[in-house]
Amino acid sequence: MKAESIRINSKRLNDRIQEMAQFGALASGGVKRLTLSPQDKAARDLFKQWMEELGLEIAIDEIGNMFGILKGKNADRCIGIGSHLDSVPTGGRYDGPVGALGALEVAQTLIENNVQLNSTLVVANYTNEEGVRFFPDMMGSLAHVKPEEVPNYLKAKDKNGITIDDALKEIGYNGGMKCGTLRYNHFIEIHIEQGSILEERKIDIGIVQSVQAIHWLKLTLIGKSAHAGTTPIHARNDAFYALSKLSCFARELCYKIKDQLITIGTIEVKPNVINVVPEEVVVTLDMRNLSDDKLKLAINQIENFIATDESFAHIKVSKEVLVNVPAIPFNENVVNAIDKSCQQLGYSSYKMHSGAGHDAQILATQFPAAMIFIPSKNGVSHDVDEYSSPEQIEKGANVLLHTVLHLDE
Amino acid sequence: MKAESIRINSKRLNDRIQEMAQFGALASGGVKRLTLSPQDKAARDLFKQWMEELGLEIAIDEIGNMFGILKGKNADRCIGIGSHLDSVPTGGRYDGPVGALGALEVAQTLIENNVQLNSTLVVANYTNEEGVRFFPDMMGSLAHVKPEEVPNYLKAKDKNGITIDDALKEIGYNGGMKCGTLRYNHFIEIHIEQGSILEERKIDIGIVQSVQAIHWLKLTLIGKSAHAGTTPIHARNDAFYALSKLSCFARELCYKIKDQLITIGTIEVKPNVINVVPEEVVVTLDMRNLSDDKLKLAINQIENFIATDESFAHIKVSKEVLVNVPAIPFNENVVNAIDKSCQQLGYSSYKMHSGAGHDAQILATQFPAAMIFIPSKNGVSHDVDEYSSPEQIEKGANVLLHTVLHLDE
Repeated sequence: MKAESIRINSKRLNDRIQEMAQFGALASGGVKRLTLSPQDKAARDLFKQWMEELGLEIAIDEIGNMFGILKGKNADRCIGIGSHLDSVPTGGRYDGPVGALGALEVAQTLIENNVQLNSTLVVANYTNEEGVRFFPDMMGSLAHVKPEEVPNYLKAKDKNGITIDDALKEIGYNGGMKCGTLRYNHFIEIHIEQGSILEERKIDIGIVQSVQAIHWLKLTLIGKSAHAGTTPIHARNDAFYALSKLSCFARELCYKIKDQLITIGTIEVKPNVINVVPEEVVVTLDMRNLSDDKLKLAINQIENFIATDESFAHIKVSKEVLVNVPAIPFNENVVNAIDKSCQQLGYSSYKMHSGAGHDAQILATQFPAAMIFIPSKNGVSHDVDEYSSPEQIEKGANVLLHTVLHLDE
Repeated sequence: MKAESIRINSKRLNDRIQEMAQFGALASGGVKRLTLSPQDKAARDLFKQWMEELGLEIAIDEIGNMFGILKGKNADRCIGIGSHLDSVPTGGRYDGPVGALGALEVAQTLIENNVQLNSTLVVANYTNEEGVRFFPDMMGSLAHVKPEEVPNYLKAKDKNGITIDDALKEIGYNGGMKCGTLRYNHFIEIHIEQGSILEERKIDIGIVQSVQAIHWLKLTLIGKSAHAGTTPIHARNDAFYALSKLSCFARELCYKIKDQLITIGTIEVKPNVINVVPEEVVVTLDMRNLSDDKLKLAINQIENFIATDESFAHIKVSKEVLVNVPAIPFNENVVNAIDKSCQQLGYSSYKMHSGAGHDAQILATQFPAAMIFIPSKNGVSHDVDEYSSPEQIEKGANVLLHTVLHLDE
């Protein structure tokens, strides 16, 4: 059988995705599988069992990243494929597992078809991609490319004061392999789109060329609390009113600057009493753009508004940058290999950008990488209603399989 | 000694205010004395002891309102004076106690000077004026004028599920007198201004002619949560952006409509995650105006904005009116008696309105009433930094004394 004619086993892959969804299953049909939780341990254990049954060599690194290694003919070549198994608190069944189990399916298909690659193939599950329980997100892939940060990551605490180190030991995934040991010549990740571009255009596969730049800003605005019934408007120093004006300005910026996204997602008000003018507001801005320069322009405009708008005249503002990741261009060779696979398989494809962060963008800072997107129903993600059909998942995994074959040539 | 020459004992009154501040004393110098708490019981006990030492007849009603009764010559006439002893969680020493202890001081001064009034004089401490532990605020005075509501009030629960009934029994202030038994011919309350008009104008006494209308509105705005990185601005249904626009519009209304105040004091956002567009915002609007008609206009404009602004186009809004109190005009005779007293005492005075709610405004719905304001340093209240000087308090109590004498003529 010629390699170009082989296909993944759609039923097996889709059954495994549904089987994995039992761990942390919510009544709503979604999943709560926070990283390193008992539910994540159960998911990891099954993933490890499947890899062992296939004969892959198992390696766990210091941050709990899991690898199933299929040796190739040439010890100097290595292709990584995979994603993550953790979820957000009210997450879906597909964000992560499609990539991790899709990678496993590719390895199994190669083995079953007696295809031995030149490259060693690594099937990966990265720790704490979601970043809900521990900060920062994409921690496992960050540890892979910045092993010097591992001692800090191990000290990261969840809201109950449990460290990553404790949590890894608790579930037995404190591995012995040094982070960053595996050196990929290429890395490819399948993921659900988390947007509606593919669905709207009725496209099978998104070929991801880059990930947009992200800037997370935490602002603390301090005004003065005052009695709601006795303090004239002109005498108020209202931290929430200042935020309201900033929020409206941020929306205007999104209309003015191409591809600019700004989201005010978290707001805490003090004293949060019905008849007291807010003294303090702590708020986060999630700002993204495909262009580093345009994102910088938006950040400058926000800072300029705070410095000059009258609503901020007597508000004390402190800023903290939580995340600042430049736009990540993916590797042209990997992108071309995905494109070629889509053409050979007869799938429609669309070159696009990723709005969300992914392990592949972190790994791309050291290894030639790219991503394969499959459609998300209604663009929903990080939600129990997340859905991609068995056929869409099958196509994504077939593209991954053939991309691996092309990159192995 | 002619009645017009008598004066209250400033040292005794101010010492008592400071002694009262020990109950619930905060390290910051402020007071936390939530209604019917152990701290409130201790304050009540001392207040009762002082009234008993003076020979006042003690009566406690079903809602825990405390009265010290000094019989007059004419059984058909009755003047009520007083305020409250409870505080907000980080309150000051003056909001409430100045009025309750000022009333006690007036009774003591009359007794010491052998002045027997025609009217019976009632010194009052009303339960739960602040409304922090139990809803609604000004509950004691409400029970006085609406005894039919007492069974409902007794069932009101604090956040730990303790009812007013339980709390009254726990501290032994579940009195036997029916609420509303005492019928005042006049009621007068001294209170700190809680604003800075008197201080800025260097005025001794505020003669309060009315209390502004209050409308508390709770809004729940439901949009749709979405990924901050993948959802285009035009496809968002952002509940917090809608609130931001409403907040800016509310501020414009305050500039346009005379005497209009709007405060957005409490905000809760869901899911409150940095990279998720807010799905739900629960928010309160505190709206006040001296004019009922102008307040209605403002409420209509807010409702119209919600119904027509594009930011609310796909936001589901539910409304709940928490409080709706019309403007309360005070009694002209009582206002004139306060005015005359200020003139006789040589104190500067200023006719004004109250922005805050007070027991006197509730009692004014059945009894001719008015209020005496004394200056608040920097206009601060409901805060540990609340301050009025001993001289300012002395002047307020002397005005109360002579207002009682005039109304008794």
